[in-house]
Amino acid sequence: MSKDEGGREMLIQNIRYMTVAEDGKWTVNSGEILIKDNKIENIGNFTYEESIEKVDGKGMLTLPGLVNGHQHTPMSLLRCYSDDVPLMTWLNEKMLPLEMKMIDEDRYWGALLSMAEMIKGGTTAYADMYIGMDQVAEAAVESGIRAVIARGLIAMDDNYEGRLREAADVVDRWHGKGNGRVTTMIAPHSPYMCPPDFLKAAVGLSKEKDVPLHIHLAETKDEERMIQEKYKTRPVQYLQQAGVFERPVLLAHGVHFNNDDYKILESVSGGIIHNPVSNAKLGCGISDVKRLLESGIKVGLGTDGPASASSLDLFFEMKAASWFQKLKYEDAAVLSAHDVLTMATQNGADILGIGEETGSLTVGKKADLILMDMNKLHLTPGHETANLLVYAATGQDVDTVIIDGEIVMRGRELKTIDEEKVMANAKERTKQLLGRL
Amino acid sequence: MSKDEGGREMLIQNIRYMTVAEDGKWTVNSGEILIKDNKIENIGNFTYEESIEKVDGKGMLTLPGLVNGHQHTPMSLLRCYSDDVPLMTWLNEKMLPLEMKMIDEDRYWGALLSMAEMIKGGTTAYADMYIGMDQVAEAAVESGIRAVIARGLIAMDDNYEGRLREAADVVDRWHGKGNGRVTTMIAPHSPYMCPPDFLKAAVGLSKEKDVPLHIHLAETKDEERMIQEKYKTRPVQYLQQAGVFERPVLLAHGVHFNNDDYKILESVSGGIIHNPVSNAKLGCGISDVKRLLESGIKVGLGTDGPASASSLDLFFEMKAASWFQKLKYEDAAVLSAHDVLTMATQNGADILGIGEETGSLTVGKKADLILMDMNKLHLTPGHETANLLVYAATGQDVDTVIIDGEIVMRGRELKTIDEEKVMANAKERTKQLLGRL
Repeated sequence: MSKDEGGREMLIQNIRYMTVAEDGKWTVNSGEILIKDNKIENIGNFTYEESIEKVDGKGMLTLPGLVNGHQHTPMSLLRCYSDDVPLMTWLNEKMLPLEMKMIDEDRYWGALLSMAEMIKGGTTAYADMYIGMDQVAEAAVESGIRAVIARGLIAMDDNYEGRLREAADVVDRWHGKGNGRVTTMIAPHSPYMCPPDFLKAAVGLSKEKDVPLHIHLAETKDEERMIQEKYKTRPVQYLQQAGVFERPVLLAHGVHFNNDDYKILESVSGGIIHNPVSNAKLGCGISDVKRLLESGIKVGLGTDGPASASSLDLFFEMKAASWFQKLKYEDAAVLSAHDVLTMATQNGADILGIGEETGSLTVGKKADLILMDMNKLHLTPGHETANLLVYAATGQDVDTVIIDGEIVMRGRELKTIDEEKVMANAKERTKQLLGRL
Repeated sequence: MSKDEGGREMLIQNIRYMTVAEDGKWTVNSGEILIKDNKIENIGNFTYEESIEKVDGKGMLTLPGLVNGHQHTPMSLLRCYSDDVPLMTWLNEKMLPLEMKMIDEDRYWGALLSMAEMIKGGTTAYADMYIGMDQVAEAAVESGIRAVIARGLIAMDDNYEGRLREAADVVDRWHGKGNGRVTTMIAPHSPYMCPPDFLKAAVGLSKEKDVPLHIHLAETKDEERMIQEKYKTRPVQYLQQAGVFERPVLLAHGVHFNNDDYKILESVSGGIIHNPVSNAKLGCGISDVKRLLESGIKVGLGTDGPASASSLDLFFEMKAASWFQKLKYEDAAVLSAHDVLTMATQNGADILGIGEETGSLTVGKKADLILMDMNKLHLTPGHETANLLVYAATGQDVDTVIIDGEIVMRGRELKTIDEEKVMANAKERTKQLLGRL
């Protein structure tokens, strides 16, 4: 599914499209978008007479593609396998036993199922941390999605060298593949899964390979307690001591911070990926997004894995993010729809280290964009577009998805993935996986 | 759209369908459903050889229709007109000025837009409190939805008699219409909008007309403060003193209660309609659903009006209800998917006073049911059905809706409402309404 070298051009006509101003407000404009190769060549009102491929966007609203900043794609095979149980039961008794039995084909089909679902919901770029990343990368190249992948590093045994080599191999093998759509990170799992030496070695590898870090941080109170007991410090300080914050870093979750933590995080390059639905479903708590943003810390949005979030629809995460902050502060004015749209696009792209090339409808950036069908009952009559998108729309309102200049969905039909085939294979892999338990 | 007298029969074949056991667990069964006139005649595995209308439900999952327990349907014209502002600004500066300018046609098209959206999302019955209920009732009869309507009573002037007469007229004119689909209530707006005499008169009217009450209760801390200042008591006690709890009553919201309140509410006939999304969006707080249910108080689900909730998709409310309780208690085990499904169906029907005739797939009940298309990426692979429905599905996964034995949607196409026409009229009415401001 890589791009032809032919210098493809495409004109998206008759659209309304959204851009964000300096003050953070999203506004609706009318015009056209010219795509050349894989980039946005022009946008707005211009004359272009060449006879090229045309996409009629009448009635559609164009947005930058959404960015899902934290995912474990193969876990789609475990979606709704276990809900409504405490986190530790969920993880140790339900997830891990099945994950230990997963084979390469399971991960491949699970990843492809996740990617198909993400594309259908308007996600054009995402970050993944898992094991068996070759299969994930293959699925990413094939699906056409923009993926930032990393081998999750857990100190299950003392074979640190072997694990780090696997992480380095992912970078060496996949960074830049799929016409540059696939990039990589180094992903020590979390403070509690990585002893100091291991964590430091991962930081070193991130420096050596010149790629960012991806790590879980401050997801639960248990984590706080564990790090306190083990290392007599807090998760944030623990990462600081290992040099994590000297590197660009994607910090997933960020629910439990104190004043000292916020102070340290202010200077981080990268930011927090907020996963509100997963944090709620697992009873972890509500990240203080208002405080993070006010402290100048960048916050993006993610679903976390499909086995906790259940859905990969970022429109749910947008709603949840806004609802939760309003509840936390008992104030309807906190975290507006405009703020949330920025979190789900440019902020996410920045934290994934790809903010220069995607995250907004800007001339010169990669053509990663979605067309939404706004001619729906639940989007009528149509007062404030940003509000409609965040509070009323869902991923099922996305009609067309373009990633890296390629149409990967049109009229809700996937162009790069056989939907029936991926569902059939995911079901069969799941059946066999359960059989091995 | 009222039913023929011909004794219509319909067989829904090849389906999986959900029923709930004594212990509150929802299970999936396979079989058929026979509908005769407007009722479920048989369900399960049986032989029926007559040549009647057949609906192929292959790949579909059948559920009882969802019940939206609290709505102000005409407010769909104000969807996303104002979000992210504090409740009192929203109400007094944004909603009321426009609501004062609404005319009959606005309310009719707004109600029809809401009903079309509700049906498309799998809602088969709902409760409405607003002004201009003749237009709402007409829309209900026309759309085929099951509606429990009431004229909202606000003591704006001293014309109590006039207001009460309007409320009585709604009962006299509409109760039992649409083949019995339309029933009525008496709806004093809230403790803070109804002085004691007015409230007592409304309770008396509810008794005289033998219909339940519908009232807002304990939505905000402001309400608590206002009632304390005005009457030196709490909202629940205020209603008790007026005799509200001697009648069957639909209590909308129920966010702010203390121990004494719970004690009083234990003996209520009816229950609380929980509107989690509206409560979050307006920064009101999280109702203690766990405590209510443990106290034996029935809890159903509602969206509240489209101008606060933005969406009328009850699948969002189901998600939000579960997420919010898990956050409130920091415990993933609180309010399971099974509990939530019961809230969205039988509990709601019971609180609306129609629990004997709808709310579950039971022989002898009215045929109010929905067929969901489960062959979707985001519902794959398909482990626990209750979990999938609550945590992963949306209203857009509903394929077919049957209300009172009539197919009102099939293959996502509405049979009773012209979707394009209702959207065009809603937009035009909104434009004119804004012009009158």
